[in-house]
Amino acid sequence: MGSVARITHISARSDAGFDDAIRLGIHRAGETLRNVPGAWVKDQKVEVSDGAISSYQVVLEVTFVLDD
Amino acid sequence: MGSVARITHISARSDAGFDDAIRLGIHRAGETLRNVPGAWVKDQKVEVSDGAISSYQVVLEVTFVLDD
Amino acid sequence: MGSVARITHISARSDAGFDDAIRLGIHRAGETLRNVPGAWVKDQKVEVSDGAISSYQVVLEVTFVLDD
Amino acid sequence: MGSVARITHISARSDAGFDDAIRLGIHRAGETLRNVPGAWVKDQKVEVSDGAISSYQVVLEVTFVLDD
Amino acid sequence: MGSVARITHISARSDAGFDDAIRLGIHRAGETLRNVPGAWVKDQKVEVSDGAISSYQVVLEVTFVLDD
Amino acid sequence: MGSVARITHISARSDAGFDDAIRLGIHRAGETLRNVPGAWVKDQKVEVSDGAISSYQVVLEVTFVLDD
Amino acid sequence: MGSVARITHISARSDAGFDDAIRLGIHRAGETLRNVPGAWVKDQKVEVSDGAISSYQVVLEVTFVLDD
Amino acid sequence: MGSVARITHISARSDAGFDDAIRLGIHRAGETLRNVPGAWVKDQKVEVSDGAISSYQVVLEVTFVLDD
Amino acid sequence: MGSVARITHISARSDAGFDDAIRLGIHRAGETLRNVPGAWVKDQKVEVSDGAISSYQVVLEVTFVLDD
Amino acid sequence: MGSVARITHISARSDAGFDDAIRLGIHRAGETLRNVPGAWVKDQKVEVSDGAISSYQVVLEVTFVLDD
Amino acid sequence: MGSVARITHISARSDAGFDDAIRLGIHRAGETLRNVPGAWVKDQKVEVSDGAISSYQVVLEVTFVLDD
Amino acid sequence: MGSVARITHISARSDAGFDDAIRLGIHRAGETLRNVPGAWVKDQKVEVSDGAISSYQVVLEVTFVLDD
Repeated sequence: MGSVARITHISARSDAGFDDAIRLGIHRAGETLRNVPGAWVKDQKVEVSDGAISSYQVVLEVTFVLDD
Repeated sequence: MGSVARITHISARSDAGFDDAIRLGIHRAGETLRNVPGAWVKDQKVEVSDGAISSYQVVLEVTFVLDD
Repeated sequence: MGSVARITHISARSDAGFDDAIRLGIHRAGETLRNVPGAWVKDQKVEVSDGAISSYQVVLEVTFVLDD
Repeated sequence: MGSVARITHISARSDAGFDDAIRLGIHRAGETLRNVPGAWVKDQKVEVSDGAISSYQVVLEVTFVLDD
Repeated sequence: MGSVARITHISARSDAGFDDAIRLGIHRAGETLRNVPGAWVKDQKVEVSDGAISSYQVVLEVTFVLDD
Repeated sequence: MGSVARITHISARSDAGFDDAIRLGIHRAGETLRNVPGAWVKDQKVEVSDGAISSYQVVLEVTFVLDD
Repeated sequence: MGSVARITHISARSDAGFDDAIRLGIHRAGETLRNVPGAWVKDQKVEVSDGAISSYQVVLEVTFVLDD
Repeated sequence: MGSVARITHISARSDAGFDDAIRLGIHRAGETLRNVPGAWVKDQKVEVSDGAISSYQVVLEVTFVLDD
Repeated sequence: MGSVARITHISARSDAGFDDAIRLGIHRAGETLRNVPGAWVKDQKVEVSDGAISSYQVVLEVTFVLDD
Repeated sequence: MGSVARITHISARSDAGFDDAIRLGIHRAGETLRNVPGAWVKDQKVEVSDGAISSYQVVLEVTFVLDD
Repeated sequence: MGSVARITHISARSDAGFDDAIRLGIHRAGETLRNVPGAWVKDQKVEVSDGAISSYQVVLEVTFVLDD
Repeated sequence: MGSVARITHISARSDAGFDDAIRLGIHRAGETLRNVPGAWVKDQKVEVSDGAISSYQVVLEVTFVLDD
């Protein structure tokens, strides 16, 4: 008849790129949260060291269905 | 002297209408969270199947007071 | 040639539901303001007591034409 | 492999209430657009006549899958 | 002397990544719309299945010049 | 009982000024869309060539009533 | 030592253009409000009749210093 | 059964600091408005003279319950 | 290689002022969350009783690094 | 292969009108910045003196291409 | 007849509190920029170390009048 | 005791992709600005020529620490 989900925000950082940071965040969310159907990429950031990009960071809005 | 609350987002879906979806979300929040004084309706959505509305979904911003 | 209106915000609360809160706000606005052509629903909120919804609150953006 | 959808905005007005306005908008969208999976309610407005609500208006963000 | 363009929103989904989803959306837009000079990436989303990313989705704001 | 309208965005550019660009956009919208009751000016931009303004551009949010 | 001002919103419509609508709104505000130092133009809209612009409307955010 | 409140914006300036500007605005609101339950701080600004801060300004969103 | 953090919102209220409310919220967050590197102040509100400020409330966006 | 531009904000005020304020801002930007392709009008404001508009102010978002 | 100003953003951090961070930012801006009439506080952040606030950071929107 | 940074916006365009455009912008910023700790990706855009993507453009919000 109905269902309830929670929406949370996760920040993930990777040396390898934005795609890897997204995968890292989704993987980590899956360890504690079951039933994650998807995530929005809300923000993207690079960190710079000595003039070069040293890491990639994303903020994800993750939805997960609450267990019944 | 002071008090601290947390703010979280819940998405609830019902076949019966927006009001029922709100009640469902508040009810589910009350099972795990104590001291929920209220909730803002942040988003409203309908899902459509064969041209007719099949379910109603709301996103709620729920505040709950942390236990001391 | 021209006309001038004012835009104001009203918050209305009802035990009976969102529709009743909107009617209450429009009715109260009509007591002091003439010529209200309409109102936008800007926010919707529920207040919760003992895990159940105790009242419904709306914020309305009310426009009213200034008398000449 | 992939799919493409279009997102459009529809404004619907009804004398009977917000729910009826949403149904009206979804119904009208279904006449010309196939494969509408859902719609967000983006804005809600009432029109006022002689101090009473005369009609209810919603703005819907409608997504529809493009035919292949 | 002057020119007129339309602005529309397209949602595109691909299994291969965000770049592929953008290409897919631009390609599909080009089938029905002539004179598309560019597109903004407005939203990015991943869908998750069994804890892994199953598809990539983008919302594009596409501008296209109207024929004279 | 009810009515449905669509909301669309148009970008219009003129050498003569913002007012002319708005007129151009409204005129062009009227060729393909019937029943346009009005338009919001959402953005205004100038293009510069050799340090002087060469054209004026507006983005309009146009509403038009769908034929029954 | 200090001063207090109020901020209010006014909507003004003119047949002659946006500049005339702004003047109309400022003039009307000055009849009831003293000490208006300025106003922001928050929104601009045209109304269309038979495919031509019939009136220009602005929403102004007016600040006025409260009398001591 | 229900209650109606109005929401208004006040700008207050003080030489002494942001806290004093907030107190000034709340005090002034209380002279003409009864039943002010609270206020949001929406904006904070400093004015600078000869390189030093000369005054502090806040914009408050004040709610006040309308008398029955 | 990478790291994951969560972002959450906390509301804290103090009788003593905004700075004390922020400290209260940070302190409470530190009891249950390890590795909190910082917090954004997202909203500030005062509650008013008998025309005077009775408490200060802040909404904090708190980031905390998830344990590995 | 690539190019880099900077985006900056300029505020310009004129006694003669909004169009003149825009021209003034573009002209001034051209004195120190080369290669300005255009500017968005982000805000419009009037200053009022003795109930009449005394000056027009615009905030422009100016893009300029960096020299190679 | 007219004047042109630039708008820039500065981030300032202090161990002593938000007010000190604002003063620091205004002072630093005054070293290179003449004619700074004021600044908006756009963001406020605290950094946390061992569960206690270690520094206060503000983002300021600074306006400064360009020399003629 | 304290530090001050400036925040600026840069737009960078590359034929090779979004990642290359980000690198290009960071590289160019590093030529004139010292101490750039990072950058947010604020907007992403593709330019289209003959129905295919011809270049990738990003808007970066770059922070750089001012020299003491």
